[in-house]
Amino acid sequence: MQPNEIYFKAINPATNAALEGEYKNATPEEINQTVVSASKAFQVYRKIDNEKKAQFLEQIAVEIENLGDELLERSHLETALPLGRLTGERGRTMNQLRLFASVVREGSWVDARIDTAQPEREPFPKSDIRHMIIPLGPVAVFGASNFPLAFSTAGGDTASALAAGCPVVYKGHPAHPGTTELVAKAIQTAIEKIGMPRGTFSLIQGNTIQVGETLVKHKGIKAVGFTGSYSGGMAMFNYANSRPEPIPVFSEMGSANPMFILPGALQERAVEIAKGYTNSINMGVGQFCTNPGLTILSKSPETQTFLTTLKNSIEKVEPGTMLTSGIQSAYQKGLEQLAANDQLEILADSKDAHDERKVVSKVFKTSMQSFLQNNSLAEENFGPSSLLVEASTKEEILEAAHALGGHLTATVHATDEDLENYGDLFEILEQKVGRVLVNGFPTGVEVCHSMVHGGPFPATTAPSSTSVGTNAIKRFVRPVCFQDYPAMLLPKELQDNNPLNIWRMVDGEFTKNTIN
Amino acid sequence: MQPNEIYFKAINPATNAALEGEYKNATPEEINQTVVSASKAFQVYRKIDNEKKAQFLEQIAVEIENLGDELLERSHLETALPLGRLTGERGRTMNQLRLFASVVREGSWVDARIDTAQPEREPFPKSDIRHMIIPLGPVAVFGASNFPLAFSTAGGDTASALAAGCPVVYKGHPAHPGTTELVAKAIQTAIEKIGMPRGTFSLIQGNTIQVGETLVKHKGIKAVGFTGSYSGGMAMFNYANSRPEPIPVFSEMGSANPMFILPGALQERAVEIAKGYTNSINMGVGQFCTNPGLTILSKSPETQTFLTTLKNSIEKVEPGTMLTSGIQSAYQKGLEQLAANDQLEILADSKDAHDERKVVSKVFKTSMQSFLQNNSLAEENFGPSSLLVEASTKEEILEAAHALGGHLTATVHATDEDLENYGDLFEILEQKVGRVLVNGFPTGVEVCHSMVHGGPFPATTAPSSTSVGTNAIKRFVRPVCFQDYPAMLLPKELQDNNPLNIWRMVDGEFTKNTIN
Repeated sequence: MQPNEIYFKAINPATNAALEGEYKNATPEEINQTVVSASKAFQVYRKIDNEKKAQFLEQIAVEIENLGDELLERSHLETALPLGRLTGERGRTMNQLRLFASVVREGSWVDARIDTAQPEREPFPKSDIRHMIIPLGPVAVFGASNFPLAFSTAGGDTASALAAGCPVVYKGHPAHPGTTELVAKAIQTAIEKIGMPRGTFSLIQGNTIQVGETLVKHKGIKAVGFTGSYSGGMAMFNYANSRPEPIPVFSEMGSANPMFILPGALQERAVEIAKGYTNSINMGVGQFCTNPGLTILSKSPETQTFLTTLKNSIEKVEPGTMLTSGIQSAYQKGLEQLAANDQLEILADSKDAHDERKVVSKVFKTSMQSFLQNNSLAEENFGPSSLLVEASTKEEILEAAHALGGHLTATVHATDEDLENYGDLFEILEQKVGRVLVNGFPTGVEVCHSMVHGGPFPATTAPSSTSVGTNAIKRFVRPVCFQDYPAMLLPKELQDNNPLNIWRMVDGEFTKNTIN
Repeated sequence: MQPNEIYFKAINPATNAALEGEYKNATPEEINQTVVSASKAFQVYRKIDNEKKAQFLEQIAVEIENLGDELLERSHLETALPLGRLTGERGRTMNQLRLFASVVREGSWVDARIDTAQPEREPFPKSDIRHMIIPLGPVAVFGASNFPLAFSTAGGDTASALAAGCPVVYKGHPAHPGTTELVAKAIQTAIEKIGMPRGTFSLIQGNTIQVGETLVKHKGIKAVGFTGSYSGGMAMFNYANSRPEPIPVFSEMGSANPMFILPGALQERAVEIAKGYTNSINMGVGQFCTNPGLTILSKSPETQTFLTTLKNSIEKVEPGTMLTSGIQSAYQKGLEQLAANDQLEILADSKDAHDERKVVSKVFKTSMQSFLQNNSLAEENFGPSSLLVEASTKEEILEAAHALGGHLTATVHATDEDLENYGDLFEILEQKVGRVLVNGFPTGVEVCHSMVHGGPFPATTAPSSTSVGTNAIKRFVRPVCFQDYPAMLLPKELQDNNPLNIWRMVDGEFTKNTIN
């Protein structure tokens, strides 16, 4: 093997120049040692008490902050994302860790259930049975290119797996290996300061598919969290299902996030919606999983106002640098394909790039008929472009909604009157996506208890899960029950006197009460 | 195609004679029509209110009881299971339906979560976000041979899918098609009486793998529940993952249910445990998923008493008729393979069958060394046989536990002193199974809130689920959240005034309170 196959460097997408530092593609033997170490750590980590696990998550947040400007600057060089955005993303990353710390500390997330014994029951006595969820084991996490902090090394997948009690083997994204290494160092510092077992978190780097394949196929890995492309996510899914022991794969693979602009809303707020749409498409140079890549526009007297405003706002958009040259060329190839499709017209076009390393924003327009005849038009073109489809009637709008596959989000712009007329549209949309928004834009994803960042296939490989919000912890667990266990063996969560003071279901009733 | 490929008959396993009635292998077109009808029904059924859904489930129980003795007698002819057992199983089936009715009526199972808006938050306002779980769509359910009522037509999978709001397309097990047809008729009567949409439940029959494959690969099917063999369960899993849209498969594929008899328990209760073990192995002619097929026995002065008692009790076991001739020959082939293995001795042997349609019970014995060297010895031989492995030391017992794959249950017989000495055994076992029992036998599965009937692969394809107990409802759902929804669009579960009076998580706190 040549050195250039073993080592790789980070590339500054703004200049195409290699950045300082060299990163090593992990070998199969290194991956094996890493997973073995994670499996050993699991036997200790799974039993560490809630308070200490919470402190660990909080300490990771502190250590990330302690990295200071070095982290932001390196991340900026590797991703071309502005420092302001990265500062915000760092805050979100720390908040996620703290939110999961609060979930672990509170403790009720384990779904504790106790059915007490009925020794006198006829014809058979009833046993005492106690249920909770427990961690699965080491989780392989694959970071995303587009969120070098919040969906990467110490991002939502890592935070939720660690909160669940699972060690993490993190495969760094090759687009920002220096950022990855800094954050991994922060986590290691937290491991040492709080006294967690070595192997609770490990980093492996790699810019080849083999590194990921070897990791996912290792028998010590018990689940996979992934954020990225459809092809990458499906590769992990297929590796995992071809193992002697298949394991769950939570791949979030993005989507076109359809938006519907209903007639009343268009009439009332054409200018405002057109401007908001422009901003949403161009947030982070269009590199959001929740970017609105498809909009169904009702015909209205205000259609022209909307289109003109959109055209004018898109024209003012500055060309942007994408995360990697690979992402840039995929986006530009997508634009070329759309431009070559004679069913589509280019409605709006941002300033000329004048720099081959920057990309423009474009909005295409097509008829409902073309859209319905061509499924691929509803696919995401990752970047700052979007497709507008004009609908003449309510029936066409419903037909377009029916034709959708699975997406992360759907958005509806509507007045009260629209809402009264379009109840059936919402019935369809809730079956197509993980999150339905009214009169907003999908590009903000709140990290909270009720968030669903997921959706039916092909938005994800696991529609029953979310990768953002506190329910993300539920991906990395399985239930176990204990029948007629003596008190000395019961975990705290299931002991009679409820020492953790958590919510439990006792004989079918939610309560924090002790058991007599 | 020949008529004998289109139609099949039920066979009485006690006589090998064909029973009255002919059943048709569903054609691809019939399967298509059935799934299309289920998909249509879904759009109505998913929105039917909780009270009416609960009444529907309860009415199914009533209609099953109304079938009277005809059901029990037909089932007895088709399965050779005694009428007493079938009467009990019918009771369990009705109780399951009523338990799920109570879960649906109570309503809190939907994991309602509300994060209220903070319009003044800096730097960005916080939206109002509301979360709940919703049904996936039509579910294909494959009945089990060994529970013609409780794990079949109106069994746990059907009851939990209907409770979740999913129509069921039920593929009858070819071993008891007449029983299936009777129960399906009862469900249809309940559909008519309560006024549920046609297609909420449909039956398709078949004795070919093609029928199942066509059903699982139909794009209208959104999840699969299966109980049966490893090969059958994995076939469904692989069909589902090869679809353009993969879907979740909940295959419960049985296991050997390891049992550990620790030294103190053996010293104290050798006779009692040996007798209980004999009963548990032979329950339903050994045709329970939770049959204890593998026992690790600590060496003790009482070992001989245990072995002698076991030998004497097994010798008194009457030969039994298995569910089908196919199951019988697989069991007998398994026995022959075990008998031919020179590492094993036959420890106990029941009465000679004197009837080629009946099978005997056998217990084999081997050394720890042989067991650890031969993984296949931990595999289930479905029927009334079991393997005893003698352990000389605690280390050997722990090594045997470490060597286990995934099983549905593990059982430990122990005194208080054993418990103090063997804490690490329990640590291992909870990572290997869905249910750990102390001083019991695994063959009884309580239907309750805390039951886990599931476990790591290969016990199931979905370790994060249970197929028995109220949590089984969670298999057939996915989460959705609504952002800034106007009140008029919100489902009852998420309305401010909490009209269903359910438990919800509001801004992180569990409460039944309304929102101001």
